[in-house]
Amino acid sequence: MRILILGGDGYLGWATAMRFSNRGHEVHAIDNYLRRTAHWEAGTDSLTPILGSLPERAEAWRAVTGFEIGVTEGDLTDWDVLEAVCREFEPEAIVHYGEMPSAPYSMIDREHAAFTQVNNVIGTLNVLWAMRDITPDAHLVKLGTMGEYGTPNIDIEEGFIEINHKGRSDVLPYPKKPGSMYHLSKVHDSHNIEFACRIWGLRATDLNQGVVYGIETEETVLDPLLATRFDYDEVFGTALNRFCVQAVIGHPLTVYGKGGQTRGYLNIVDTLQCVELATLNPAESGEFRVFNQFTEQFSVVELAYHVQQAGRDYGIEVEVDHTHNPRVELEEHYYNAKHTKLLDLGLKPHLLSETLIESMFAAIERHKDRVIPDHIMPATEWRPPARETSPA
Amino acid sequence: MRILILGGDGYLGWATAMRFSNRGHEVHAIDNYLRRTAHWEAGTDSLTPILGSLPERAEAWRAVTGFEIGVTEGDLTDWDVLEAVCREFEPEAIVHYGEMPSAPYSMIDREHAAFTQVNNVIGTLNVLWAMRDITPDAHLVKLGTMGEYGTPNIDIEEGFIEINHKGRSDVLPYPKKPGSMYHLSKVHDSHNIEFACRIWGLRATDLNQGVVYGIETEETVLDPLLATRFDYDEVFGTALNRFCVQAVIGHPLTVYGKGGQTRGYLNIVDTLQCVELATLNPAESGEFRVFNQFTEQFSVVELAYHVQQAGRDYGIEVEVDHTHNPRVELEEHYYNAKHTKLLDLGLKPHLLSETLIESMFAAIERHKDRVIPDHIMPATEWRPPARETSPA
Repeated sequence: MRILILGGDGYLGWATAMRFSNRGHEVHAIDNYLRRTAHWEAGTDSLTPILGSLPERAEAWRAVTGFEIGVTEGDLTDWDVLEAVCREFEPEAIVHYGEMPSAPYSMIDREHAAFTQVNNVIGTLNVLWAMRDITPDAHLVKLGTMGEYGTPNIDIEEGFIEINHKGRSDVLPYPKKPGSMYHLSKVHDSHNIEFACRIWGLRATDLNQGVVYGIETEETVLDPLLATRFDYDEVFGTALNRFCVQAVIGHPLTVYGKGGQTRGYLNIVDTLQCVELATLNPAESGEFRVFNQFTEQFSVVELAYHVQQAGRDYGIEVEVDHTHNPRVELEEHYYNAKHTKLLDLGLKPHLLSETLIESMFAAIERHKDRVIPDHIMPATEWRPPARETSPA
Repeated sequence: MRILILGGDGYLGWATAMRFSNRGHEVHAIDNYLRRTAHWEAGTDSLTPILGSLPERAEAWRAVTGFEIGVTEGDLTDWDVLEAVCREFEPEAIVHYGEMPSAPYSMIDREHAAFTQVNNVIGTLNVLWAMRDITPDAHLVKLGTMGEYGTPNIDIEEGFIEINHKGRSDVLPYPKKPGSMYHLSKVHDSHNIEFACRIWGLRATDLNQGVVYGIETEETVLDPLLATRFDYDEVFGTALNRFCVQAVIGHPLTVYGKGGQTRGYLNIVDTLQCVELATLNPAESGEFRVFNQFTEQFSVVELAYHVQQAGRDYGIEVEVDHTHNPRVELEEHYYNAKHTKLLDLGLKPHLLSETLIESMFAAIERHKDRVIPDHIMPATEWRPPARETSPA
């Protein structure tokens, strides 16, 4: 299958590109190095060293495996880039990771909020238009986020919910109350994609993904040049990955507030499995389907205790700290999100275990000297600075 | 009250600015002439002549009434413009009409779709940031559209719906399935505004407005220089206004398809009443409330028959034509939308009558020579052009 990976230089995008290539698919990756640029600006970096440009990574992949990954360094908000690749490569599937992926980044200030929404919404609109006009039979596999739903007091269904109301009934998009300007951008995308499928007969799968953890896949371990990035800073690092780095360098685990915030989680190797399952079992023409992509639910404090316990067995002392919560969110709430559609397609989950955490410790230890401790504590506040009160 | 009108040069914005000024409020209007520019580009124009720039209209208003309306010619997507006005004028209410308001415009091509979404979403994001940082107690009165809801098979509630699901219950944002890139932009706005109220404690009222008809208000009739614009072309004209112009010039009424598309409608004088009621009865701090702003439901073909009947009494023959539907939408569907919240605040509806339609005929006849018939038939297709099938 000809598979186009948008955001192919990222944590999941690069790992996905190698996975499909390894399985014999024809793969082309696009990336504009947005994540690398944001790190340069902030003075942060991936824990794992990313030793080359995207073309150099593809060359390393070819050297190690003999497989080719085509690459384009370019921006999805630039129509000419996307149009040229779609006309030439004629993708059958488009796996779309190509967005600004950070909630804190989107909350830094007005400019970052506006950038995040324009970048994500317009990039995805361009993808929809390219599908409409160039590859109408291609299947879009779009990475959304479980964070689109927020924390409703009822069970979270997979994208749609049957509502019985005053004696009538309809199946409608699941209502959304996302928690950041970034999460909002994904909600906007979902609405735009649903519309494009309905109006133009496109096919799309929206993968509402949970928080991903893990550092290695079958392909990343083949050679140091093939490592994928691993972020642990307050802007791009996700909960478990951050905690594991904190544990290894002896920093207290930064649980925001009470830590009762419950979310869905999955291992990076299950992300690859899910994306592969969605791609190989495409949506019908005109169908907009939504899968909730995670394998287990944890509260933040449960995660922290798992890491603490694994540390005990591994021989490192791990302190759990309840820090000020920079976000505005419920710290105790009901959370029960359905996630059976990918299991029905054959997903075999790799659940979180202390062994896995310990293997993450070991992988992190190899790059321990690269950790920049200044960027671990949260700095981005959801609330505006307190206003000076005027004298009476 | 100090009231800032965004989009104060438009059909409703200009009429609203005069209304509030006439009631003794301090009014400032911002507009970037987006509508005028789009008309210039398309070779279309308002039926009523708009004889001056926004400053010239404000000057005419002062000459006729003695009241001042402050004006700024500028773009809401330009932060500096909005920041300067908010710092200087310190609005207590912000009435936000300042968006690209046309579904067909947003469906012309990729560029128009992207422009519509960026213009509307970023303009509104800027407004939210200005409120957060400059006027946190101001009340946002935002013009949304009933088109955000689409045509669900259950009753449409006002913004939120109580969902009972698997033994639990929550009140959540009403699910949306909008029908164009423009309507989607308003859905995106609604999500962003709900978030800003929840996170920053802002206060906002989202007015999901139906289709507005009518050409005159108490203020527009005071002097020809005070007329508000009146669009009848396929891009900016709305159903009843278009039908009345078609009737007057002897053009068959262009009912798209079967004409069973049912929507909410209201008279422009009721728009002014609703916006005034929402403004004088503000939302609480942190509250995001939604009012459905219309007074009656009609199907398109019902509207056409009303115009035909009024024509008979007025002495003009009106033909009803079922033309090709350029949109992708259901032409027969359930539709029952609640609209009691504005009635509860005191709205006294001016319902559609043949007398009203006849008075619109009379007003239109005065400008009959200005009609450009070339732009009455729909030209903007929701579907892409048919693809050439390759030879077997």
